[in-house]
Amino acid sequence: MERLPGFRDFYPEPLPHKDVWSADARQHIFGKWREAARRYGFREYDGPPLEPLELFTTKSGDEIVGQLYNFVDKGDRAVALRAEMTPTLARMVAAHERNYKKPIKWFAIPQLFRYERQQKGRLREHFQFNADIIGETDPAADAELISLLIDSLRALELTAEDFVVRLSSRNAWQDYFSTRCHDHAKAYEFYQAIDKLERTPPEESQKKLAELGFSLDEVNQFINSGQPTAELKAILDNLAARGLGDFVKVDYHVIRGLAYYTGPVFEAFDRKSELRAIAGGGRYDNLVKLISGGKVNLPALGFGMGDVVLLELLQARNLLPPFDATTDVFVLIEDESLRPQSLKLIHDLRAAGFAVDYALTPAKPDKQFKRAQELKANYTAKLDNDAYVRIRNLKTREEVVAGVNGAANYLR
Amino acid sequence: MERLPGFRDFYPEPLPHKDVWSADARQHIFGKWREAARRYGFREYDGPPLEPLELFTTKSGDEIVGQLYNFVDKGDRAVALRAEMTPTLARMVAAHERNYKKPIKWFAIPQLFRYERQQKGRLREHFQFNADIIGETDPAADAELISLLIDSLRALELTAEDFVVRLSSRNAWQDYFSTRCHDHAKAYEFYQAIDKLERTPPEESQKKLAELGFSLDEVNQFINSGQPTAELKAILDNLAARGLGDFVKVDYHVIRGLAYYTGPVFEAFDRKSELRAIAGGGRYDNLVKLISGGKVNLPALGFGMGDVVLLELLQARNLLPPFDATTDVFVLIEDESLRPQSLKLIHDLRAAGFAVDYALTPAKPDKQFKRAQELKANYTAKLDNDAYVRIRNLKTREEVVAGVNGAANYLR
Repeated sequence: MERLPGFRDFYPEPLPHKDVWSADARQHIFGKWREAARRYGFREYDGPPLEPLELFTTKSGDEIVGQLYNFVDKGDRAVALRAEMTPTLARMVAAHERNYKKPIKWFAIPQLFRYERQQKGRLREHFQFNADIIGETDPAADAELISLLIDSLRALELTAEDFVVRLSSRNAWQDYFSTRCHDHAKAYEFYQAIDKLERTPPEESQKKLAELGFSLDEVNQFINSGQPTAELKAILDNLAARGLGDFVKVDYHVIRGLAYYTGPVFEAFDRKSELRAIAGGGRYDNLVKLISGGKVNLPALGFGMGDVVLLELLQARNLLPPFDATTDVFVLIEDESLRPQSLKLIHDLRAAGFAVDYALTPAKPDKQFKRAQELKANYTAKLDNDAYVRIRNLKTREEVVAGVNGAANYLR
Repeated sequence: MERLPGFRDFYPEPLPHKDVWSADARQHIFGKWREAARRYGFREYDGPPLEPLELFTTKSGDEIVGQLYNFVDKGDRAVALRAEMTPTLARMVAAHERNYKKPIKWFAIPQLFRYERQQKGRLREHFQFNADIIGETDPAADAELISLLIDSLRALELTAEDFVVRLSSRNAWQDYFSTRCHDHAKAYEFYQAIDKLERTPPEESQKKLAELGFSLDEVNQFINSGQPTAELKAILDNLAARGLGDFVKVDYHVIRGLAYYTGPVFEAFDRKSELRAIAGGGRYDNLVKLISGGKVNLPALGFGMGDVVLLELLQARNLLPPFDATTDVFVLIEDESLRPQSLKLIHDLRAAGFAVDYALTPAKPDKQFKRAQELKANYTAKLDNDAYVRIRNLKTREEVVAGVNGAANYLR
């Protein structure tokens, strides 16, 4: 029986096959994300992986349904696996925002699901680091969020040589659009064309923009000017003060396809532009109001960073450490009459915090020792009798004999 | 818009409402589970939350479908949200077992989903600590697994006063059944009756057992004898050698409802028997073969421990620590001309590993200080000028002035 296409199995390393993923690398990345969030004072939240379908259609319109894992449950509810976290966050914040001081700084690491047409290597689920700030309109909040984005990548040993945050402004594009076109209904189509500019042949973009009453040359001129708006300048100055100036640049190619962004927007890319975006986000000041049916109105901004592109980048830059089993002590049981006492020793060492392994059943001494080596144990420990334990450092080959109750202290 | 019934929202503490759950307590429990597994040499794995429906029906028969979140996806595949982890584990192990030395000791913390009829407080999802040992028939493996179960509860400060593992044997019941009844087709129904004994009025059990050709009195006599089989005795002796004798007792009431158990079975309960089972598991030596369509035959055993009952127990025993925001340093910005330098200080302290917060926008000094207190910050730090920083310990009220580059060292 096979797993579903587009879904992943995560195995312990070393990996048994190129077609599976590393549970250890995943935990490594999650740990660094959590740690960066902690340093920035972001608190963790989570919501259900299954939500009412309406939560997603309210935010993104009915066209989103084609990309969702949606169905009708046994209670006749239209439901969907979550395809993004922001609607859930908006729902949760709207429900209880009065209990939290503003700005609210929260993060989550949800697994997200999208039914996309099957392509080679294209997945239907991924994990995403989501960080959001709610209740602050000042660009200082945008800078704080982008700073967290940068530092969560730096925590994985990535540098300014490896990635850059391309900063842009939905506002700037809104101004651009409305000084040239008064048919607001066309705005979203225009933003979509800008969003696709880099992935579309120029002739095609030119045609599309002309249809909307715009000139590709003029659009390119605006992009190439790269003049930061006052808002973007405040963000850039703030990041520069932190010493993060090298990690960010203004780039009006970025506009973010989604309809709901309202202010500064940004995407993180590998410097070589070989991969898809590592992360993306921006301001969505109207979304909490929309999701709460007008009851709660709070400015908000956030980003999402997926685990798949990030993992590709870390692998390409050779930045994933080896993830062996971490065995501190392998207890050798050569005299089976000492097995009960050995079990006691094993248990005491584990209680003292050590990772301990041993042969569950009688085995030849050389086989046990080989297993200790396979597990890359730091030490072996073997009872000489019920009072003394022989501890051997497998790196230095040093050996000491300790009282059985002093073994943990010796190893510490 | 409301979340679906039976699903949970997890908020940062302090909790805004009695109807939501603590993301902090969840992470606390997950951390202790992972830490116990590490000490025992168990490696982490994970699989997809969505699996082919067939994976579950192969293991549990078609009757399971009524309890599943199942649907047909956009590619016409019959799929289901995972209701248990063991089928996925069996699939994953069967696919790549040759790459792993036996016994395989693995764990996972999946979220599981069941569409159960809506009852007060009854959830439709929970998280479950799953630990399994694959490739070892000896009861030493059962003892190792039960020892991990016990120590993962002890890691949460629970003691032998709080919980007990009731150990039983599907083999013993099989023997009991087959010496009295030769109609094997009735075996499962008999096990189900035993499983329900404690939750069913005696008259009803008596009637049911009589129908199957058994006597309730005789069944109770067998249960009350409590004689461990040789297999169970080996497990008890092994656990006693570790010093865990007080945490386990033979109790033939336990039989585990599920069809696929083949040997020792066990359940962990709170000593006062006020709650549902905290954990349950046992041997399932035929399941890997079944799931792999006969290709791989490996003995196996495992347990699952849910987060919901465990959380109830920890709350009842007052064993959950407070989970406040952990702010190491709150940086006060009283002179706005020093904001850029303050941002640098904030960034340096975060880079040194400290959790740092500050007012994103200009605020009155007393308001900033109040926020530092609300966040229970250990220190405040305030630039006197661009060279010196005034660091105040909010507990001792001690204050020092340090060079701006020495602040991190002072705080360490």
